[in-house]
Amino acid sequence: MTRELYVGLSALVEPGNRELGQIVRRVGPYVAADALCSERVSEQLVGAATTRLGEPLRLPAVEAFGARLLDDADRLGVRIVCPDDEEWPSQLAHLVRISRGYTGQVADRDTDPPLALWVRGPHRLDHALARSVAIVGARAATGYGNYVAGDLAHGLAESGWTVVSGGALGIDGAAHRAALATGGVTVAVLACGINRPYPVSHTGMFERIGEEGLVISEWPPDAPPYKLRFLIRNRVIAASSAGTVLVEAAHRSGARQTLGRARLLGRPALVVPGPVTSAMSAGCHEELRIEGARAVASVAHVIEEVGRIGTDLAPLPSTPERPHDRLDPTSRQVLEGVPIRKPLPAEEIAAAAGVSGRDARRSLPMLVALGHVEAIDQGYRLARPA
Amino acid sequence: MTRELYVGLSALVEPGNRELGQIVRRVGPYVAADALCSERVSEQLVGAATTRLGEPLRLPAVEAFGARLLDDADRLGVRIVCPDDEEWPSQLAHLVRISRGYTGQVADRDTDPPLALWVRGPHRLDHALARSVAIVGARAATGYGNYVAGDLAHGLAESGWTVVSGGALGIDGAAHRAALATGGVTVAVLACGINRPYPVSHTGMFERIGEEGLVISEWPPDAPPYKLRFLIRNRVIAASSAGTVLVEAAHRSGARQTLGRARLLGRPALVVPGPVTSAMSAGCHEELRIEGARAVASVAHVIEEVGRIGTDLAPLPSTPERPHDRLDPTSRQVLEGVPIRKPLPAEEIAAAAGVSGRDARRSLPMLVALGHVEAIDQGYRLARPA
Repeated sequence: MTRELYVGLSALVEPGNRELGQIVRRVGPYVAADALCSERVSEQLVGAATTRLGEPLRLPAVEAFGARLLDDADRLGVRIVCPDDEEWPSQLAHLVRISRGYTGQVADRDTDPPLALWVRGPHRLDHALARSVAIVGARAATGYGNYVAGDLAHGLAESGWTVVSGGALGIDGAAHRAALATGGVTVAVLACGINRPYPVSHTGMFERIGEEGLVISEWPPDAPPYKLRFLIRNRVIAASSAGTVLVEAAHRSGARQTLGRARLLGRPALVVPGPVTSAMSAGCHEELRIEGARAVASVAHVIEEVGRIGTDLAPLPSTPERPHDRLDPTSRQVLEGVPIRKPLPAEEIAAAAGVSGRDARRSLPMLVALGHVEAIDQGYRLARPA
Repeated sequence: MTRELYVGLSALVEPGNRELGQIVRRVGPYVAADALCSERVSEQLVGAATTRLGEPLRLPAVEAFGARLLDDADRLGVRIVCPDDEEWPSQLAHLVRISRGYTGQVADRDTDPPLALWVRGPHRLDHALARSVAIVGARAATGYGNYVAGDLAHGLAESGWTVVSGGALGIDGAAHRAALATGGVTVAVLACGINRPYPVSHTGMFERIGEEGLVISEWPPDAPPYKLRFLIRNRVIAASSAGTVLVEAAHRSGARQTLGRARLLGRPALVVPGPVTSAMSAGCHEELRIEGARAVASVAHVIEEVGRIGTDLAPLPSTPERPHDRLDPTSRQVLEGVPIRKPLPAEEIAAAAGVSGRDARRSLPMLVALGHVEAIDQGYRLARPA
């Protein structure tokens, strides 16, 4: 049942949603689904989920929705991998760091880890990604860029590294193809349903990747590749791999965002220089001027950089997480003001915690949903440990 | 007379010599020349100076040597600029920082500031260099490199920056020529006598630079451009300018050393990326991978980087230098062991200072020459302040 709920929840809101991700991680998919169905979450979340479910939010309906998606996967000959599954790539959990600003920088949009991944291909997902490098770049790549992307992918594949990319025209395609041609493993991370590869002209390439590598997606079948989804998807490319290499990028290029995600994650953000006379390298050179970017001019450079942090792909340290570690600063502060025994109204908690009444009224229902706080007679007190 | 001595001393040893430079800075050219002639300096220094003077070292001979060189300058229609002259570029004094490891890194060879510069051209040297950028790179430059060097020099000249370079084939020449063509000021720093520009094929270019910009050299007329001299000269290119831009460089390239000098000096070490497929950019990309290098892809980038440290070209802070600030660590330690009143033999000073007898015997004569210590009856004590 957990499985159905994970899959159901994953498809009820756009991937990366922080509110839902936070609740699922805190209380598991069952209680999370219950919180959603009893509307103990934000209105937006309820609205989005109701629209997608197509009927009133009820636990059995969410479960049935997940079950139908699992059937769809079977019919399509693909599988769905969830966070509790053995082959789940644990490094995706690092996304919570940037989702919550653990690294001092908060991403510009929700970047929570996926709740489920649709997967086609013969390899275990965690194994394929254990030693992987992302190669990304411009769709309108030049001959130079395509050559370098292919050369790097070839060398990485030859050294046993998996090449991760986004399946797009240009740099992405050159990297996937070179990895395939070398007999290596390559992983295409889609921004749409796994049954409708985009771009269409790469259909043959995706088929081959599905046979020899892995095609993965966070979206249910038939999900169209909206522009925004590429930006949501990029976090998975960066978080899957030990480092991201940007090969060619114009000044404005989505691939720069993938590199930025790698940087936020503390993974090597590697940049291939090019002629300064080439507009297709202008974005690369801007990236090179950002603190922490590293120029790479060869496969050896890339391996030197990603090899260093091999251990960083190990699972997150398993020291028990304190319940409020994952709260945002305001909620954490509000929690400090919640009495242990005698319930108090929000206003008094606000005064005790030193926050505005508005902040308290906003945070307390979430703290209740998360199980930190109990609501009793118009007041709140700390929940007893289970 | 000071002038003759500066010029004489400058030509008695190879430029950059740390021992001579240190003495001259400490006690001025007169006492330094006296220390040299009375052989209170190292044997190597005495040997080198005697060979170049062509007669036994005596103060009047050194002075006459300098006077002859000043006459040579007049005859050649050039001038000699010394550290006491108004137009001396004070930023050259920063070279003592790397000469003595003030920045934590000691250069791989003597890098003392010049004692004199031969100058041809219509501008005041200090004014011409006050806002200057060095552009250096491969002699065997590609069309790409020549284009970029010219483009940067053009843009810098247009913005009122002086373009400093080494007058060599390839990148250097492209930079000088573009600055000239833009009507800007360019400074060619030679590694040989000012009357024998090298390479010969650049004779016309040097003539024009001598008319519209400045040609400068640390060497007396007719000095041939030995290979080593380019490496000695490079420190002047780096120290003259607010920052150094490396345009193209093969893996092994002298221009990389110029960039290294800029880095040691704490000046912007700027690197133009190029195709990773080009051997002529391989050295650039290696440099880009060194901590502190900055990629520049446009004139705007260069100006952004060098503009920041405009103030760094101001004269060295004029807080009085304590006498032993300029000593090497061992001599400084030896000095700690020298008694104030009752002279002690070298061995006892060594014991008091916690250094080997050999170190003490080596350092004490230099400390005497520098005026820190008096030698009395086989022993040593601190010299009285003058």
